[in-house]
Amino acid sequence: MHPYRSHTCAALRKSDVGGTVRLSGWVHRVRDHGGVLFIDLRDHYGITQVVADPDSPAFKKAETVRGEWVIRIDGTVKARTEDTVNKGMPTGEIELYAQEIEVLSAAKELPLPVFGEPDYPEDVRLKYRFLDLRRDTLHKNIVKRTQIISSMRRGMGEAGFAEYTTPILTASSPEGARDFLVPSRIHEGKFFALPQAPQQYKQLLMVAGFDRYFQIAPCFRDEDPRADRLPGEFYQLDVEMSFVTQEDVWETMEPMMTAVFEEFAEGKPVTKQWPRIPYDEAIRKYGSDKPDLRNPIVMQAVTDHFAGSGFKVFANMIASNPKVQVWAIPAKTGGSRAFCDRMNAWAQSQGQPGLGYIFWRQEGLPSGEAVIVDVSSSGGKMPSDAEFEAAAKNKPNYSTKIVGAGPLAKNIGEERTEAIRTQLGLDDGDACFFVAGDPAKFYKFAGEARTRAGEELNLVDRDRYEMCWIVDFPFYEYNEDEKKIDFAHNPFSMPQGGLEAFDSKDPLELKAYQYDAVCNGFEIASGSIRNQSPELMVKAFEKVGLSQSDVEERFGGLYRAFQYGAPPHGGCAFGIDRVVMLLVGAKNLREISLFPMNQQAQDLLMNAPSPATPTQLRELALRVVPSKKD
Amino acid sequence: MHPYRSHTCAALRKSDVGGTVRLSGWVHRVRDHGGVLFIDLRDHYGITQVVADPDSPAFKKAETVRGEWVIRIDGTVKARTEDTVNKGMPTGEIELYAQEIEVLSAAKELPLPVFGEPDYPEDVRLKYRFLDLRRDTLHKNIVKRTQIISSMRRGMGEAGFAEYTTPILTASSPEGARDFLVPSRIHEGKFFALPQAPQQYKQLLMVAGFDRYFQIAPCFRDEDPRADRLPGEFYQLDVEMSFVTQEDVWETMEPMMTAVFEEFAEGKPVTKQWPRIPYDEAIRKYGSDKPDLRNPIVMQAVTDHFAGSGFKVFANMIASNPKVQVWAIPAKTGGSRAFCDRMNAWAQSQGQPGLGYIFWRQEGLPSGEAVIVDVSSSGGKMPSDAEFEAAAKNKPNYSTKIVGAGPLAKNIGEERTEAIRTQLGLDDGDACFFVAGDPAKFYKFAGEARTRAGEELNLVDRDRYEMCWIVDFPFYEYNEDEKKIDFAHNPFSMPQGGLEAFDSKDPLELKAYQYDAVCNGFEIASGSIRNQSPELMVKAFEKVGLSQSDVEERFGGLYRAFQYGAPPHGGCAFGIDRVVMLLVGAKNLREISLFPMNQQAQDLLMNAPSPATPTQLRELALRVVPSKKD
Repeated sequence: MHPYRSHTCAALRKSDVGGTVRLSGWVHRVRDHGGVLFIDLRDHYGITQVVADPDSPAFKKAETVRGEWVIRIDGTVKARTEDTVNKGMPTGEIELYAQEIEVLSAAKELPLPVFGEPDYPEDVRLKYRFLDLRRDTLHKNIVKRTQIISSMRRGMGEAGFAEYTTPILTASSPEGARDFLVPSRIHEGKFFALPQAPQQYKQLLMVAGFDRYFQIAPCFRDEDPRADRLPGEFYQLDVEMSFVTQEDVWETMEPMMTAVFEEFAEGKPVTKQWPRIPYDEAIRKYGSDKPDLRNPIVMQAVTDHFAGSGFKVFANMIASNPKVQVWAIPAKTGGSRAFCDRMNAWAQSQGQPGLGYIFWRQEGLPSGEAVIVDVSSSGGKMPSDAEFEAAAKNKPNYSTKIVGAGPLAKNIGEERTEAIRTQLGLDDGDACFFVAGDPAKFYKFAGEARTRAGEELNLVDRDRYEMCWIVDFPFYEYNEDEKKIDFAHNPFSMPQGGLEAFDSKDPLELKAYQYDAVCNGFEIASGSIRNQSPELMVKAFEKVGLSQSDVEERFGGLYRAFQYGAPPHGGCAFGIDRVVMLLVGAKNLREISLFPMNQQAQDLLMNAPSPATPTQLRELALRVVPSKKD
Repeated sequence: MHPYRSHTCAALRKSDVGGTVRLSGWVHRVRDHGGVLFIDLRDHYGITQVVADPDSPAFKKAETVRGEWVIRIDGTVKARTEDTVNKGMPTGEIELYAQEIEVLSAAKELPLPVFGEPDYPEDVRLKYRFLDLRRDTLHKNIVKRTQIISSMRRGMGEAGFAEYTTPILTASSPEGARDFLVPSRIHEGKFFALPQAPQQYKQLLMVAGFDRYFQIAPCFRDEDPRADRLPGEFYQLDVEMSFVTQEDVWETMEPMMTAVFEEFAEGKPVTKQWPRIPYDEAIRKYGSDKPDLRNPIVMQAVTDHFAGSGFKVFANMIASNPKVQVWAIPAKTGGSRAFCDRMNAWAQSQGQPGLGYIFWRQEGLPSGEAVIVDVSSSGGKMPSDAEFEAAAKNKPNYSTKIVGAGPLAKNIGEERTEAIRTQLGLDDGDACFFVAGDPAKFYKFAGEARTRAGEELNLVDRDRYEMCWIVDFPFYEYNEDEKKIDFAHNPFSMPQGGLEAFDSKDPLELKAYQYDAVCNGFEIASGSIRNQSPELMVKAFEKVGLSQSDVEERFGGLYRAFQYGAPPHGGCAFGIDRVVMLLVGAKNLREISLFPMNQQAQDLLMNAPSPATPTQLRELALRVVPSKKD
């Protein structure tokens, strides 16, 4: 027999009863039931219940073992009695009667419990990550993560892509975030950088004639820690294709990623045809370029209904500035004063002056009309609101006409209120919130109000994955701080309309062949068709204040390559952490990462970073110069 | 129609004749045959021949295009005439008659030819790697590399392994080579290190309860450039398993890797059952722990035949030192004085005093006996050696007795010479070389002589992949420079015989559960069963002069983990570059690497490493301190 195991801890079934087997694993839990010991033996695959009674030759040894010891057990497989069968576990029909136990590795007192997974401080969990990872939830998340990535790889292979590995020791990239630097020992005073993304390399691969590239690519950004970002490294599914339009990229990735989501969604529906929503439309409808489409609320402009109206705050704004619009956030089932007031209070907590609203209800009884409810049958109990309402509706002078309520409705009058209701398709019991001003300035808040209303009213169906592409992003944006034009996204993107549009249009009006994929309100991918024309590249950089020689210096490899026959190409990158978090339902990146750093960018398990030795520093021609502390 | 292509450049067949199609690709070559232009259009998938005659509306444009321009061509598919069909290419039965050509991207004059692939200086090839990669051989190698790695991944998945990604920003590892360091911005004066291998992490994964790990893992070693090593990073197929013996590792990896080799060997035979050769035996038989088993030469000790013999050099050495042995390197078909002298001269060129030999031949005619060859039928031409030999053998007093020749045979006499011949199974026309001394000192040279003899005599069958496992490596070795005991290989390996053998045996006699996989004389993998006992770990390090606190400081994560229930585990790592080189038949690492650095550890394409900005250095609290040049 194998020295450690004949079966895994998930393998034994009723058909194995009577057999002699050998298992190895961790002691998950020991229970003493009136002198009979039950050991739950755990390995990667599952748990098997082991029994040792005082007649067992292994009983003495069994009495000594403790949680998380690694032991080997030889025993005979027995059927459980009907009342002890555990249908919740695959091995629940049998138990192993222990004949021999060998301790393969004892454990000291645990700094962190494995069984039961109570909450535990994060620094202990990270320092003893090897114990933390034994806990069921984290173990399952990590296994699922490997399966999701494997499924992505399979999907990309089936779509005709090959995985090319690009260098990790590379040049500093001046495009985005801060680089991690790696001092060169051979070239004193010079540094490699870890790639923020393999952007330039994947484009070079296209210029080199490889047609369909992908990579599960490590990326490195030396950014300050943030709750939704692990310090250091992260992975993306990086993709690039030659001789394609943006539609080709979408039509390639959409079925592939839908299949990956469906494989791991545990039956939850996944969008099959991802809507393609222009950026401007997404902002207008959802107040966000990352709309959560599970939320059915779609905003609309209702400016005309407020222009010249009795609600002077809005009317005056509209009259004084042609940019001003009023957006409506319709909130089905939100038609109670209590909810509207709660939203208003929330808006004020966000630093807004308030959130105007109208809510609609049936006109009901004339003011002051009494409603009598017979309480004799309920033994004199106070009637409920519903009972009052039913009684009121029974009265002959009850009006079912739907009228708007709230101060705003009063100000603009019945006709405009009704026009708004009609435009938005609202009904008895619904509400609507209004935001006015320059949409460029208020759309984010409007989007947040949409999200909050949808969530508070339980309009959001949480058990589904709603995808979309956000397309036609602006090419440039205005940088208010520096009072200049900047690239809105990727400087390597192709502006729409080619050289002609580029020369003739207002730069801030230019759109890019640039797109994001969004799932349930999270950006899961970003991509573009690239600008592969050296002339247009130089022109594009000129508008943000960079000269041709800047381009040559900063993006020399790519700029040079484009001068030797570059195919039209484009691609995208999916954020793997985000996809995994969505699929396992994790809220914290540490719940889906194997050996993460803490929020102070330290690896507590391996004790990194740590001081270099004098020899190392001398070899690298470096000296540490502590900054002056303030 | 798609704006760029309806087909790839490898897709069109006879069945497409008559169709209107669109292709895009690079101009591989333009030929002008009497006013008719032939353009070979190339993409990732293949080449299609395009024709434009003066009647074609695309003729004018076709006259302008040059090599490596990217163009789009619309045209009609025509069958080639019988005499112009090219059976060597998949599209060789058709050609495309050009109707319209669009230049998607022109190319400047090429610094590096793509067509024909003449030799070209390496610095130009690396600076313009995007052109170099378009060359057919390199393009094919890189594609095959992606396929080999993908096949490994598939194989590991089918064997029940999951791919876990371990951190790249980690702690300095004091085990082997020099680390690349990454300064921490948040923790001044502290550094991360890039992993030399994920050794500790994969062991931690086992302790964390994951059962079967693999990773196509990037590894980083800051070593001085060497011909067979690229500066910077390399990849290994990294593997670890729990609850296994070394046989389990071999039985898992052997069929998986055999299948990978067979998939890409293009029909060459691959060893199915890899012999398991103990290290000591490999040294004795092949003079190497990386034996090329395609070479049939197996060395044997023939010390007894020289002890007390008339060859005083060897006899005296044997008499004076019990460690001295004489090893024979039998060389079938090497039995000519010319060959033996050539080997002797080679040995001297290697700094050896010479290489003793005996060669065997039939005794032939008594000395001085004339041999007459009739040259009348060949018109008086000088007879060949073979004709002389045939004539000699025809003479009645020709002796077929096999006798040893050469000075060494004379010295030891006929009986000992014959005993050696019998032991080695040699025959007429064979030779044998002898090396004497302390085998620990001469085995490497003996192994090189074996290799040289096998190659010179064409005994090595180059068209096969011969694998083996070298097992039972020594645990420690004696470090002559530092006059102390060192780990022979991996300090994390388990010594054979457990605590008992460890305490009782001479350390230099201890074997480890440590093994290599070898293919055609190259180490392709290395691995071991790990020492997961904290006590034995401390003892093992003590012998090389490191205390328990050293172990805790240097390998704290792992040492701590072993105290909380560590399963028996082991694994290995296959060198991906080496496997790919063997399978594509490349001699140079740059022929199988996408974007390699040059031998001075520079990325000429991306211009790395490069100076950091003052801001970067300030943020990292570092100053560059140039060393004093001598």
